[in-house]
Amino acid sequence: MAHTGTQTQPVRSCLLLVVVSVWVQQVEGVWPLPQQLHQSADRDCLSPQRFSFTYGRDSAAQTGCSVLDAAFKRYFSIIFPDFTKGSENRLQYVWSEPQPFVVSVSVKTRGCDGYPDEDSDESYNLSVSEGQAVLRSVTVWGALRGLESFSQLVYQDDYGSYFINKTEIVDFPRFAFRGLLLDTSRHYLPLHAILKTLDAMAYSKFNVFHWHIVDDPSFPYQSRTFPDLSNKGAFHPFTHIYTQSDVIRVIEHARMRGIRVVPEFDSPGHTQSWGKGQPGLLTPCYKGGVPSGSFGPVDPTIDTTYKFMESLLKEVKFVFPDSYVHLGGDEVSFACWQSNPNVRKFMEKMECLKTHAVRVTQCLLLSQIPQDTVLEIWKGEKYQAELSRMTQAGHRVLLSAPWYINHISYGQDWRNSYAVQPQNFSGTEEQKKLVIGGEVAMWGEYVDVTNLTPRLWPRACAAAERLWSNEEKTLNADLAFPRLEEFRCELLRRGIQAEPLFVGHCKHEYDGL
Amino acid sequence: MAHTGTQTQPVRSCLLLVVVSVWVQQVEGVWPLPQQLHQSADRDCLSPQRFSFTYGRDSAAQTGCSVLDAAFKRYFSIIFPDFTKGSENRLQYVWSEPQPFVVSVSVKTRGCDGYPDEDSDESYNLSVSEGQAVLRSVTVWGALRGLESFSQLVYQDDYGSYFINKTEIVDFPRFAFRGLLLDTSRHYLPLHAILKTLDAMAYSKFNVFHWHIVDDPSFPYQSRTFPDLSNKGAFHPFTHIYTQSDVIRVIEHARMRGIRVVPEFDSPGHTQSWGKGQPGLLTPCYKGGVPSGSFGPVDPTIDTTYKFMESLLKEVKFVFPDSYVHLGGDEVSFACWQSNPNVRKFMEKMECLKTHAVRVTQCLLLSQIPQDTVLEIWKGEKYQAELSRMTQAGHRVLLSAPWYINHISYGQDWRNSYAVQPQNFSGTEEQKKLVIGGEVAMWGEYVDVTNLTPRLWPRACAAAERLWSNEEKTLNADLAFPRLEEFRCELLRRGIQAEPLFVGHCKHEYDGL
Repeated sequence: MAHTGTQTQPVRSCLLLVVVSVWVQQVEGVWPLPQQLHQSADRDCLSPQRFSFTYGRDSAAQTGCSVLDAAFKRYFSIIFPDFTKGSENRLQYVWSEPQPFVVSVSVKTRGCDGYPDEDSDESYNLSVSEGQAVLRSVTVWGALRGLESFSQLVYQDDYGSYFINKTEIVDFPRFAFRGLLLDTSRHYLPLHAILKTLDAMAYSKFNVFHWHIVDDPSFPYQSRTFPDLSNKGAFHPFTHIYTQSDVIRVIEHARMRGIRVVPEFDSPGHTQSWGKGQPGLLTPCYKGGVPSGSFGPVDPTIDTTYKFMESLLKEVKFVFPDSYVHLGGDEVSFACWQSNPNVRKFMEKMECLKTHAVRVTQCLLLSQIPQDTVLEIWKGEKYQAELSRMTQAGHRVLLSAPWYINHISYGQDWRNSYAVQPQNFSGTEEQKKLVIGGEVAMWGEYVDVTNLTPRLWPRACAAAERLWSNEEKTLNADLAFPRLEEFRCELLRRGIQAEPLFVGHCKHEYDGL
Repeated sequence: MAHTGTQTQPVRSCLLLVVVSVWVQQVEGVWPLPQQLHQSADRDCLSPQRFSFTYGRDSAAQTGCSVLDAAFKRYFSIIFPDFTKGSENRLQYVWSEPQPFVVSVSVKTRGCDGYPDEDSDESYNLSVSEGQAVLRSVTVWGALRGLESFSQLVYQDDYGSYFINKTEIVDFPRFAFRGLLLDTSRHYLPLHAILKTLDAMAYSKFNVFHWHIVDDPSFPYQSRTFPDLSNKGAFHPFTHIYTQSDVIRVIEHARMRGIRVVPEFDSPGHTQSWGKGQPGLLTPCYKGGVPSGSFGPVDPTIDTTYKFMESLLKEVKFVFPDSYVHLGGDEVSFACWQSNPNVRKFMEKMECLKTHAVRVTQCLLLSQIPQDTVLEIWKGEKYQAELSRMTQAGHRVLLSAPWYINHISYGQDWRNSYAVQPQNFSGTEEQKKLVIGGEVAMWGEYVDVTNLTPRLWPRACAAAERLWSNEEKTLNADLAFPRLEEFRCELLRRGIQAEPLFVGHCKHEYDGL
């Protein structure tokens, strides 16, 4: 036995625990559940001092790949939280030399500097054996998903030692679009809250941040073309805005986690805050044949509206790299339009705006919905009928209606989200394929930075698993419960203020307050 | 104009704002609403450098009074948050000398080292005029309530200057018992979360912390007499317990804020966690005539039970200074007792345990409920009938049933709490007087440190006003809404993570995350 300064606690425990490994093994602790996962009771002890990530020889990406270099660093801290905090650098007895463990990552295509998109291949294979793990994927985005799964396979015993069981994973997402909406108009969310949400999204394998950035109550986006929109339309022109640099930071933080940023500039309704910085944009409402002084949706009858919208959208398309821009189109107040004689004439001429049941670009910009527009089913309890109808018309669809998780209720309401079956509607196999995914929505009427995180997590995880995993293997919420409880504790360990699912405790409670 | 290092921003703004004071005046910004409040548009500018608290010459308490000395220090920071953070110590232009402002506090009886109790007089009179405020009360506890109201009268303009309007307040609580329950058994709440809750309670003039400290899931109270109760019954014997020193700290933190600490050791049911560290305490349940291996409530048939309970309660009465100990007595599982032949015999002999609709000491310790026991109405939607029945029997009662605010729902559910009328039941005037107050309960099934504060605040504030203020003046929730919104922003400013009531923003958003 020799004295040294470091590296011993893990080893001592490793030796001791070989004896009891049969009872304390951890199985299937990955959320969302991989498509195929096989674990054995054999396990390996990980020593942070001898642990490394490396690029496989045949990997298209090598050192210098921004996305993966950063991910290696990030996941090292996630996997070894105690070590990173320095608490294991204590004087201890050495029982034996720690063994090395190498995670070799190989991707087929480089693409380290690009952005994830709707066609990104997120599949990966992960094989964990003695002293090593081999992670293979087509893209760096798939490698990120694999690293996340790998990090969830590592666990600590009561003495703080790190272990991983021998594991084989073949994994890929069920749906390509797994989104989460934040609403930064009804309440302003500070930048750090958005970045933290992106972190937690990556842990749950969400891949689209739908940024509902502006709406009636406020316009926090600081436009370079129209600075008055936030100067006059934000809650406060300095403290409650997103500067261009904030937006870039969000996009880059998301990119590093394989997350797309789809901005929404909802119009022609939901634009009250726009009117403050852009006089003449909104429709003057009429009462008794004269303007009442209040304003309705964007005024579709005048040329300046189209010029303004074109310039703004041009900027948006320049700032946000994603090929999608969400144009809202929901809940247009027709009463004001109908009160205005010019708009009434215009509507008669255009024969449009007769429906507003879907959140899509509307008559203002397009007289018909083009076939390649993705429709989002966001309203109503009978969303199955909408799914059926929209896919029959050949549109690709996103499901959001059952995942408005800002609607809280007492108890384990994640079970409702978990029970959703996005392809369980009347239609052909071809129609089912048109469901490209779904998204969780956290609308902001009653949510700001004070309660955002505990309302989101772990409640959003239910949809995350539904959108990623095989439905047949994840039908039973009772079976999912202990795995979700464990994942929630893992979120706490990673600094996410995720609320409890039920009575109990985590070994490491949340200590971020 | 001269250069100096400090003290100028407030003065400049004071001068500028005399002109517009008519529009920006702040009226009735106190929560809960004082019994009588008169404000004028005349206002005084406060300069932190020339502001002081002092004891009135005729005050029974003088410098050295622990409660008030500490309160002066605390409220100075609360009233001048910017100054305390040092941001006003900038180089600025001086326009004129700031004027002094003195808050003179006089109490009739000293009692600085005692504890608040059910008979404590919390009334106070506050008179704010030019350059001074005079706060008079019978006790130091009343002075604390007055200081809280005073702190809420001070506001800042857009330039950061502090103002207070001329104000006359005559105030006293409607009910003597205004409680808030935290449950530290279903989830462990770290000490700092309890202390923070006590802070927020004081801001809302709650005066009883009902500490539901142990229950079925865990026994975090570290008993000096029976250390095994937490060693074996806590979620973790080191990290998830309240040591004696923790308990002392909670009691002292509460005392300094005029808050009583009423501990609850719920029995004979809700004691599963007790059994782990106290073998033989719980009733063995029977199945098919033999012990099933599971255990029910405390076993009332054996002598050791009574000796144990006596010792534990003796300790509890020693550790907790309040004259109340809550003994629960609710939700006893009769099935187990009835399965056990010894208990069945015992029950037949005692002719008791036929009711469990109220949370009181039960047959185990007392064969009848003594007249001086305060009953808590905690169950059922028809709590009015219970109020009527219990007060007719001459018991003093506490209302809690409509204030189980762990039961969340979407939207502004504080309005339900606000609509409660504790004395609106069928009964005589004498019966109405037996309602000594009520309490908000935050049970812990789905609540831990991650979501406690945003679920509590500002939702609990509705009951705080109902229990303190004149009901006739506070019937209308719509009228209360803007004042509650303002108070919620004030809570954020004081570091309380209080969730939003609806769409909007605060000038100073929560920055504690």
